[in-house]
Amino acid sequence: MLNSFQTSGNSPGAARCRVGILGFGTVGSAIARRLTSPHSIPALELTHICDRRAREKRARQPEAVSRLVWTDRVDDLLSSDVDVIVEVVGGGEPAVDSVRGALLAGKSVVTANKQVLAHQGPALLLLAERQGRQLRYEAAVGGAMPIVRALGDGLAGEDIIRVQAILNGTSNAVLSGMDASGCSIDEAIADACARGYAEADPSADLDGIDAAAKLSILCMLAFRLRVLPNQIDVRTTARVRSEDFREAGLRGGTIRQIALAEFNRERSTLTAWVAPTFVARGSIFARATGPENAALITGAFAGTITLTGPGAGGDATAVAAIGDLLAIARDRAAIVPAPVLTEPAVIKGLTDQRLAEAV
Amino acid sequence: MLNSFQTSGNSPGAARCRVGILGFGTVGSAIARRLTSPHSIPALELTHICDRRAREKRARQPEAVSRLVWTDRVDDLLSSDVDVIVEVVGGGEPAVDSVRGALLAGKSVVTANKQVLAHQGPALLLLAERQGRQLRYEAAVGGAMPIVRALGDGLAGEDIIRVQAILNGTSNAVLSGMDASGCSIDEAIADACARGYAEADPSADLDGIDAAAKLSILCMLAFRLRVLPNQIDVRTTARVRSEDFREAGLRGGTIRQIALAEFNRERSTLTAWVAPTFVARGSIFARATGPENAALITGAFAGTITLTGPGAGGDATAVAAIGDLLAIARDRAAIVPAPVLTEPAVIKGLTDQRLAEAV
Repeated sequence: MLNSFQTSGNSPGAARCRVGILGFGTVGSAIARRLTSPHSIPALELTHICDRRAREKRARQPEAVSRLVWTDRVDDLLSSDVDVIVEVVGGGEPAVDSVRGALLAGKSVVTANKQVLAHQGPALLLLAERQGRQLRYEAAVGGAMPIVRALGDGLAGEDIIRVQAILNGTSNAVLSGMDASGCSIDEAIADACARGYAEADPSADLDGIDAAAKLSILCMLAFRLRVLPNQIDVRTTARVRSEDFREAGLRGGTIRQIALAEFNRERSTLTAWVAPTFVARGSIFARATGPENAALITGAFAGTITLTGPGAGGDATAVAAIGDLLAIARDRAAIVPAPVLTEPAVIKGLTDQRLAEAV
Repeated sequence: MLNSFQTSGNSPGAARCRVGILGFGTVGSAIARRLTSPHSIPALELTHICDRRAREKRARQPEAVSRLVWTDRVDDLLSSDVDVIVEVVGGGEPAVDSVRGALLAGKSVVTANKQVLAHQGPALLLLAERQGRQLRYEAAVGGAMPIVRALGDGLAGEDIIRVQAILNGTSNAVLSGMDASGCSIDEAIADACARGYAEADPSADLDGIDAAAKLSILCMLAFRLRVLPNQIDVRTTARVRSEDFREAGLRGGTIRQIALAEFNRERSTLTAWVAPTFVARGSIFARATGPENAALITGAFAGTITLTGPGAGGDATAVAAIGDLLAIARDRAAIVPAPVLTEPAVIKGLTDQRLAEAV
């Protein structure tokens, strides 16, 4: 149960950070559960929930959630006294407007929205910096796999050359399902839907649209490059057949949807693509099953760093968003700098029509 | 060549962050090379180097390094105008005094020193917070593998249950060498020495002293627990024989030095140990070769996150330290909070004398 008298774990007596959730879907409700559970987090106080279908959804919630302030109007949330808004609506335009509006209203923002970051990230980060507020987005890429902090902070001292990654949990669940059972892609999609790893129409996942948006964010973090998702070569995973797996197996590997970005600084040439790709059987990619994500980051100084973790699901994404909320609660004046970006002179995609290969 | 007229990449015209290095060994010299290279980092300006044997070492440096201010007296560095001191001396007492002195002198500190953090970390972090300065230590655990940020920031929203990791590059190089060649441990140590992965006396590495200090730091980050290295059960790796590898091979695995910490919050019981451990052939641990580090982090909400990376070496450790320097340069008023720690009611070690097994 929410205990309003709990103080911040870190500074006894300090005001708790007031949080509003915008979008009460899978991720929003997972965050609400965490922040209102008996083991809730002392530094964070969930006070507001905004959702288009507030009335209907509120009625189905346990008391700890239903008794919060609910509204179906974004403006109510923007004019409330929350310190931070968690944007988990998803999608493009209206979400961008909400994030911009929140920053203009003096709120910090935590978002899980890769489309917002990929398309408007640099402008919104600059706005946040000017407003003296924070825009954090660990949850926008890789679910609970902390790749945004790894590239943006932990490896900021590295000269990153290449990022190869599985960034889409749905296509990984589909491909690893075909891999394990030898079934057709339609059967694997049906199975992934049944397990909650795929939506009824998984085409944005299979076609690489989702991974391209995430790869665009990683290009900003790893290479300080401005690359729009539609500048990234995508090849669909929807046409992978069980025969392709048999052929890959004969070559000692299997198939995964890989997103690759490699930057040659001297030539200002970026290679970036998302495609079904041959991966060696022992690689971290082949070992990623279900909705798992994985990343292999190659730097000029340290060599190779790998990261894996659950790439989708409400609870996993909530972990990333709550980590961001805690960073804001602990240091409300922290600067999340707007990166100074350049554009690559040349953007290359995949060079031929054969199955791509992970390096 | 160092270009004093370069401005910060992020805020054109902003003053660069002035850096002094304390300890010009493998890591210190790797950092100095990076910060004085033609591709040096605009936000950071290396100005001072302090080393006991300053005179002798300075003479062997290229001009970009030798022309900096060198001193053999720590006090000279503390009274200089540097903003941040990178402590890469290693060892216990004098280094603690230097870090404390630096914070008292109003400097922020970046350290690669696991002993300083394991023994005096909480007190020094509190001092830093009171001084309005930062103490950062990504380089103290896992080399370039960004596990300090992963546990402290990226997974701050997780309820972490268990951390299992290879934290000592030397013993991993020795064990993976025995594994690959079937040689004796003495031959593997000699080979690791020849490759620069082991010191002449690797006993602190093989005996688990090094990994226990790092595990103590991870217990602070993952569980908010105060655990001293000597409270952690350590079993030496020095008595592992080639027969042990043959036996492990028959069981489908191999042997690695694993550090494990698992916390049961309800019972306030911590299990923590460092020991040569049976690991399954396909696990991330068996796949870690040479001085690589690896970590498997299990949480109540997201499940399993893994991280791997080069755990030792000047360039890898420099990547972590430079990442910390950049975090300070970008936000000099940032708060690195001193964690509020408790002590576990019970600390358990390994329960029997057989070879430990990774979960």
